[in-house]
This record gives sequence, structure tokens and C-alpha cells, in this order.
Amino acid sequence: METIHVVKIGGKVAESDEFLDSFLQSFTQLTSKKVLVHGGGITATKIGKKLGIEAKMIDGRRVTDTGMLDVVTMVYGGLVNKKLVAQLQAQKINAIGLTGADLNVIRSERRPAEPIDFGFVGDIDKVDAEALVGLLDKEVVPVLAPLTHDGNGSMLNTNADAIASFVARALAEHSNVELSLCFDRPGVMHDGRLISIMNWDFYQVLKNQKVITDGMIPKLDLGFDAIRAGVKRVNITQF
Amino acid sequence: METIHVVKIGGKVAESDEFLDSFLQSFTQLTSKKVLVHGGGITATKIGKKLGIEAKMIDGRRVTDTGMLDVVTMVYGGLVNKKLVAQLQAQKINAIGLTGADLNVIRSERRPAEPIDFGFVGDIDKVDAEALVGLLDKEVVPVLAPLTHDGNGSMLNTNADAIASFVARALAEHSNVELSLCFDRPGVMHDGRLISIMNWDFYQVLKNQKVITDGMIPKLDLGFDAIRAGVKRVNITQF
Repeated sequence: METIHVVKIGGKVAESDEFLDSFLQSFTQLTSKKVLVHGGGITATKIGKKLGIEAKMIDGRRVTDTGMLDVVTMVYGGLVNKKLVAQLQAQKINAIGLTGADLNVIRSERRPAEPIDFGFVGDIDKVDAEALVGLLDKEVVPVLAPLTHDGNGSMLNTNADAIASFVARALAEHSNVELSLCFDRPGVMHDGRLISIMNWDFYQVLKNQKVITDGMIPKLDLGFDAIRAGVKRVNITQF
Repeated sequence: METIHVVKIGGKVAESDEFLDSFLQSFTQLTSKKVLVHGGGITATKIGKKLGIEAKMIDGRRVTDTGMLDVVTMVYGGLVNKKLVAQLQAQKINAIGLTGADLNVIRSERRPAEPIDFGFVGDIDKVDAEALVGLLDKEVVPVLAPLTHDGNGSMLNTNADAIASFVARALAEHSNVELSLCFDRPGVMHDGRLISIMNWDFYQVLKNQKVITDGMIPKLDLGFDAIRAGVKRVNITQF
């Protein structure tokens, strides 16, 4: 079976020229088939602010009203996505930028307004792995923005880690998949040291000891979900 | 040979919900293979203004500095493009939004700074018809934003009529192509009446008589270029 790398890069890498260059160098060296998933929250907050649409966060997650949905659709689907695609093309990587609406590749459902109304936020329903495999087989690299659609004409804001995890799971039915959820630290840290390997039981211990808290929990949950669904390896790391 | 319709819709249709609905109704009824090309200038001007980036036009064409390039990349490639794609998906049309950078589908060259420096504006160099045909053969409808790339990592702002004409010409090598360059009037008008058919000689007469002036000239030139390259029919009309 062939190997597919699904790599999610966070804000800073996708949004600053300095980090982008070194990322592109590493990413082009990955010779396997690969899917890139990116964020864009820092830019969305900045541009929203200039447009008079203030970012509102609850538990570290963005509340997406109509105005903010336009902002993230522009910033994630347009500005950040197309910059990455153009840069990858310049490296001779035949990239294609996609949101979940394009090719109907990721369908989601708007999250219920209870207990917290996050607005136009989608929880992923279905990834069309065949569509992605069709592209990968032509040596095309899908570049996924953190946006999905509801099938009724509305885009939905969707967490980039969730997109990467769901895409990895869907592809795991066809291939050996390795998922990298990259962020701004070397990995899960404890007392300044990297925890280099973690299994489910150890994860529970670290949660109980409050070593792992807040935003790290959904990230690790998405990682372990991927492992349970047949993804061979999950890296929580810096790119 | 199969027929492919290449339809370019202008500002109002792509940017107002009222016109969009009636457009979608007509467009879904086109049963042939089809490619949609859209504009977005009204929204780009509006959002640019809010961001403190004023639109500057010379001879009806937008001057695109770095700030405006970000605006058009967001608005054309993100906001307008993804809204259309999501709406088409809701009509069960398997749309995919593309800029010229995606799949390297349209490569352009930055227009020389002389005689007028339009900034980050691209003149089309090459359309990858095979990539588009590959999508059309899978019953996918490409939705093209008026953006191309230079192959060196930069996006370039590119006129939507030009994109439609070049795409039609490239596809004409494989298929019967019909090109519709839609705008906000029923067609070429003279004394309040529609000129319903025009050949090259008649076009020259109308230009000499100043019936056809300004922005209509590049539009009609692009139409006649398409005819000369083998496109079967060009419509200059309202959608």
C-alpha cells in the first residue's frame, strides 16, 4: 500500500513569509503523496478587525456570524489558500486549493446552537476520499482550507485539525496514512521536555495530571481518533 | 464532437443574491458540459475601501498594487468563488473553484510597466485545456476566478472576459465551444435596439461610427479572437 502524508500547518507557518519558506523546503522533500491542510486564524482576526468585524472566541474557538463567515471564506479560501498554491506551483508541485465545497469533498453539518452557539461552524459529516485519491493519483497535491459546506449553499467554518484528522481517516481505508498536526511547539511538552511517544493510556494519565489541558485536548483527541480509524502514525509537532 | 459552454458572468450576477438565483436557475438547465468564469470587481472595490485600499482605475482597468492583489485574491478566489461553488453544489452541480494557480490551469505574465503600470496584472500565456477536460469528463464544472499566476509564486489579477476567451480557445481544439460573455445589458445596443448578429466587417463599421466604444472594444476583440481560434459561437449578452 502506498503512503499518504496528511500535513496540517497552523497559523504562523501559513501566514508568515519567514516560516513559509522553510516549510516549503521541507514539504517539497516529502516524496510520498501528500495533502496539505492549513489554518489562517491570525490573518482572519486581523482583516476582520479592519473591516469592523471583531473576532469573538469561546473556549479558544471562533464564533462565526455572517460577517465573520465572509471574512474566513475570503481569508482561508482566498488569501491564505491561493498564496500557498502559487508558492507550491513555483516549487513545481502541482497543487490545487480546495474548500469542502469544491468537488463536494467535505460535507458538514452546522453545529447545534446548544449549549454554545458558534454560528456558521461545521462539524464534519463526510469526506469524499475517492475525489482526493483521484487527484493524488495524478500527482496533484490537494491544499485544503479550513472551510466546509452544508450542501444547502452555505459555507461553514471548520477547524483545520478536524479537517486533517477526518481526511486522514477517510484516506486510511485506501492507503498507509501518516498524519502530522503541526503547531508552534515541538510537540506535547512536560516541564520543558518533549514527550516523544504517547499511547492512549499515557494520554489519560497526562490529562488527569493536568499536563495536557485546554486546546491540546481536542488536538490529541483528533489524533487518537485517527489512530483508531486505521491511520498508521500521528505526529503532534512543529513543521 | 461534444459541446462545451464557457459562460462568463459579470459583477452583478456573481455579487447579488437577487441576480444569482435567476442565474443559477438558467445555468443548471444548460445540460452540456460547462465552465463558469466570474468577476467580482464591485465587491473588491467595496472591501478594499473598508480596508483602506482605494480602487484605482485607468481606462476602466484596475491598477493592482500589493494591497489590492491581496484584496482581489481574497474576494475573487475566496468570497465570490466559494459562494458560487457552494450554491452550485446545492443545485447538485459538482463545481470546483479554481484560480489559474490551481492545477497550474492558467499561467500568465505580469504586464510590462510601460506604457501604463497596472501592477500585479497578468496577460494570459497558457491555458491547460487537458486539466479542464479531465474535470469536465468527470461531470465536474470548473468555476474560474479572474486570477492567474506567474509560475514564480505570485498571483496576478486577470480580466474575466480574457480568461473566458482564452479558456474557450484552448477548449476549441477538443470540442465545439460556445462562449457567452455576459454583462449588464442585453447585448451590443444601437439607438436603444439590440444588434443581434455581428460579423467582423460590421464590427469595424460600428467602431468607425463610434457605436462601439470604450470597454466594449476589448470585450468584442476577445469574442472575435475566440471565433478566429475555432470557437463556434460567441454571445455578448445578459445572462
